[in-house]
Amino acid sequence: MSAKFSVGQQASVKRSFSAEEVRQFAELSLDRNPIHLDEKAAAESIFGRRVVHGMLVASLFSALLGQHLPGEGTIFLGADIQFKKPVFLDDEVTAFVQITKVREDKPIVTLRTWCENSKGETVLDGEAVARAPSF
Amino acid sequence: MSAKFSVGQQASVKRSFSAEEVRQFAELSLDRNPIHLDEKAAAESIFGRRVVHGMLVASLFSALLGQHLPGEGTIFLGADIQFKKPVFLDDEVTAFVQITKVREDKPIVTLRTWCENSKGETVLDGEAVARAPSF
Repeated sequence: MSAKFSVGQQASVKRSFSAEEVRQFAELSLDRNPIHLDEKAAAESIFGRRVVHGMLVASLFSALLGQHLPGEGTIFLGADIQFKKPVFLDDEVTAFVQITKVREDKPIVTLRTWCENSKGETVLDGEAVARAPSF
Repeated sequence: MSAKFSVGQQASVKRSFSAEEVRQFAELSLDRNPIHLDEKAAAESIFGRRVVHGMLVASLFSALLGQHLPGEGTIFLGADIQFKKPVFLDDEVTAFVQITKVREDKPIVTLRTWCENSKGETVLDGEAVARAPSF
């Protein structure tokens, strides 16, 4: 049943988030925290400048799962996300998903999910569980 | 140090997600899974109709943390999210956050985070950890 997926398989996607994209996400999520939107408030925060919403960055995992690994038809069952460092506007982030467990009895896979910034620092780290499309 | 927040404090927000908002989130997240965007593909899926991206629904927790409880200046440290049932387009969802633990040594709180649909069913369930603004 688990022939199609195996431990160690990996997919990744690279992108950055512009001020306009952060503004759009703030409207969609209703998360209008000034640390994301207001240069002055962000400058006075511990980060010193505007940061991308962590949940917007984490949404890249959903994109990878649903389109790459396991791929189209995947159902996202759960996510555990640690926001380890801020992601700044326009910084290039690479999101990775890697299969760490394949259940034998059901088409359910566990993946490590993490993001690195342009310096190679891990900014998000965590795990996802997903139901793969029928094997 | 923990005088300002206490176990049991709760905040909530109610909203629905339109087809247009789901389309916008698909562009922002790069998650263009047909189950969210394509009526026909969604009709043939186990859900029978289009569903809202789970991460878009979960972003309401970020909004609640950053604007209501603990409030402005909060830093989201981690989230554990179980996607228990689909959220359909235009269905009214209420997101809740409730403090379950307040650390004595640091301004860090743990909250249960969950969403209910218009039938009162729990569609998302989980936990968040956040650094509260200085007490």
